[in-house]
Amino acid sequence: MKAAYFDGDQLTLKNDITIPKHNESLIQVNLAGICGTDLEILDGYMDYCGVLGHEFVGTLKKSSDSNLVGKRVVGEINAGCNRCHQCKDGMSRHCPNRTVLGILNRNGAFAEYLSLPERNLHVIPDTISDRQAVFVEPLAAAFEICEQIQIQRNWNIAVVGDGRLAQLVSRVLKLSCSEIVCFGRHQNKLTLAEKNGIKTRMIIEPKDHAFFDMVVEATGSNSGFTDSIKLVKPRGTIMLKSTIASKENLDLTPVVVNEVSMIGSRCGVFKPAIDALATGTIQVDDLIDATYSLHDIHAALEHAKRPDALKILLKP
Amino acid sequence: MKAAYFDGDQLTLKNDITIPKHNESLIQVNLAGICGTDLEILDGYMDYCGVLGHEFVGTLKKSSDSNLVGKRVVGEINAGCNRCHQCKDGMSRHCPNRTVLGILNRNGAFAEYLSLPERNLHVIPDTISDRQAVFVEPLAAAFEICEQIQIQRNWNIAVVGDGRLAQLVSRVLKLSCSEIVCFGRHQNKLTLAEKNGIKTRMIIEPKDHAFFDMVVEATGSNSGFTDSIKLVKPRGTIMLKSTIASKENLDLTPVVVNEVSMIGSRCGVFKPAIDALATGTIQVDDLIDATYSLHDIHAALEHAKRPDALKILLKP
Repeated sequence: MKAAYFDGDQLTLKNDITIPKHNESLIQVNLAGICGTDLEILDGYMDYCGVLGHEFVGTLKKSSDSNLVGKRVVGEINAGCNRCHQCKDGMSRHCPNRTVLGILNRNGAFAEYLSLPERNLHVIPDTISDRQAVFVEPLAAAFEICEQIQIQRNWNIAVVGDGRLAQLVSRVLKLSCSEIVCFGRHQNKLTLAEKNGIKTRMIIEPKDHAFFDMVVEATGSNSGFTDSIKLVKPRGTIMLKSTIASKENLDLTPVVVNEVSMIGSRCGVFKPAIDALATGTIQVDDLIDATYSLHDIHAALEHAKRPDALKILLKP
Repeated sequence: MKAAYFDGDQLTLKNDITIPKHNESLIQVNLAGICGTDLEILDGYMDYCGVLGHEFVGTLKKSSDSNLVGKRVVGEINAGCNRCHQCKDGMSRHCPNRTVLGILNRNGAFAEYLSLPERNLHVIPDTISDRQAVFVEPLAAAFEICEQIQIQRNWNIAVVGDGRLAQLVSRVLKLSCSEIVCFGRHQNKLTLAEKNGIKTRMIIEPKDHAFFDMVVEATGSNSGFTDSIKLVKPRGTIMLKSTIASKENLDLTPVVVNEVSMIGSRCGVFKPAIDALATGTIQVDDLIDATYSLHDIHAALEHAKRPDALKILLKP
């Protein structure tokens, strides 16, 4: 089959990748999405080799449950061993032996086909289009924040970053809290946030210092961490949504002095994301910049890297 | 009066420091303790200039409440402005305009006299000796952990570090949880921990990786942070008790991937610490290595810097 394979150095579109033959469900990929993590992997994150991609919607081709064959599905990306302590405690996303679609020891979604355990799959209702369904995985990652912390309606919340994930996070938090301020650097992205009822700033103003009850770091840059520290109140919370690409000069002293809580936040469960898309509570269509054929993977990735880019989709 | 004054470069024992004349309570210092933060300040932390020292017990000499004069007292070290939002919310320890005894814009305890607002003072019962009372401030910092997180009796807890603060933290956590493992590098200190019912290790063994529900970082070194990340379970908690002296190469990626919570923890309220000393629930006498005259401040500081040293006291 056709797939975009990363050998640890170069990404190549190959035609001779074997169709997955695990004892798992087989899914034909309808549409996939490019995520910041994919771009980080191409820069060496996770030392991953294999087919890239983890955001997708597809059509179930083979399954132990024949009623499901032909259905449109999305899939949770962490596949636990189902035997360890973490898996038995319902924390398969943290299984030490897990594989992760397109990220860790498991071929991903920039391909004609992928496989996942049946328990990872969720059928997508007809009211959600393929273009919307690709957002279930990153939207679930945004909803994860609400699983980890009890958001108070009267909080002041800052989202640092204005990219793909920051936009989704802002929309999700807006459901619980009226005062969301997005700090970004790209006028087109901030304008989009404003259209969704989010306040925006390009610069941290003196009145913003130590003002926010919760700050979500969603930039993936070292400056995002430093900005989050500036914005959060003493005893406030910083949610770390993105892995920090640059690791130099992180200073945790203000975290201790101001007794800040920092909570790492990664993948989420899919149900709230599917429900929000099905009911139209969260809109995502305006986040799509372009759809490329998988043949044009390199042009698609170049587009996704542009500072003004939001979601780029791939059609196998 | 006599006081140990740090000019930002050198610490000097001076005889001509003015006795504090603020509109505050005046305390004659009976005994003071040397803390890791004092040593960090001498290395440039906080850019502090002034009389050093913040752990003390003293005798109240002047007070608006004449009944208190002559009593032995300890004092909370943060003096808020009493006007701002934080102070009004009972968070004067986080007042942006605060002064901090011997740390920020307020002369400290390595002196014959110091002053503090009357609301900062706590009378010490006769059952607590001066040598024990000096520990109220650092012991309150250890108890602060229990104010910030609900400790579960069945947790596995690691304390990283075996110094002054780590010893107090271990003893406090032992009150709530039977399984405390202290990771340290100094045999004398680990032996002391063992005498207090704490398990100890000099090396992180494979079985310790991702094993602990809560890890308290109390080393003040970069390696302490890295070790804490190794020890904590996915979705576990790291309490950051010490400011990280070295700021290089801190990698927060595992915090995000494993959804770890990191909570900065600083000063605590004094009451639980006083109660624990008064009832004998917490022992501290075995933590005292030596008592020096304030005249011998330089020898005392050199002693406190020794890797095997625990608490060093100063008598004005």
